Amino acid sequence: MMGMNPRQMKKLMRQMGIKMEELEGVEEVIIRMENKEIVLKEPVITIITAQGEKSYQIVPGSEEVRAIVRVSEEDVQLVMEQTGVDYETAKKALEEANGDLAEAILKLTEE
Amino acid sequence: MMGMNPRQMKKLMRQMGIKMEELEGVEEVIIRMENKEIVLKEPVITIITAQGEKSYQIVPGSEEVRAIVRVSEEDVQLVMEQTGVDYETAKKALEEANGDLAEAILKLTEE
Repeated sequence: MMGMNPRQMKKLMRQMGIKMEELEGVEEVIIRMENKEIVLKEPVITIITAQGEKSYQIVPGSEEVRAIVRVSEEDVQLVMEQTGVDYETAKKALEEANGDLAEAILKLTEE
Repeated sequence: MMGMNPRQMKKLMRQMGIKMEELEGVEEVIIRMENKEIVLKEPVITIITAQGEKSYQIVPGSEEVRAIVRVSEEDVQLVMEQTGVDYETAKKALEEANGDLAEAILKLTEE
């Protein structure tokens, strides 16, 4: 496979009944795991169909791992009440504080 | 490639300097585009490293296409004020109504 140019590769693929097409217009790909997510930025995605099975081949331009912090609705409401900020700001502060209520409130009142 | 068993395939890959490893613990993969997202459920993901380039090969168990509806913070606040529901409920109603303010309020007050 390594010594082949893209045209030869494509021809061989066609002969083997494999269809490849690029998926255009993708902004990013998010791989969600339990406590983190891997974000693939500027991805080049090829959809490959072989013997009725579809698969996605993704080559990322760059990637980033983000921790997933789950904050409760109650905590968001409490931060809003204590600091007077709106929902999105309260939620963001909680996420940045890793769910720590006191830290989120302190940070918002200090600003 | 087609007539090879997985062990032969792996050996050949190793000889060509290609590393393959499965990524465990993935809940779902989201391919974000401008107006929609493709959700790959129960995905089997293989990370392939060849000649320094990393790629992700994903075989989805099933897939779903969701429209992305962007709702503004102002509309969410308005729905909350008009109907007395909390933020998440207001946002969800707006998304389900495709961003239509009147429809979201009507639906929430009818319930």
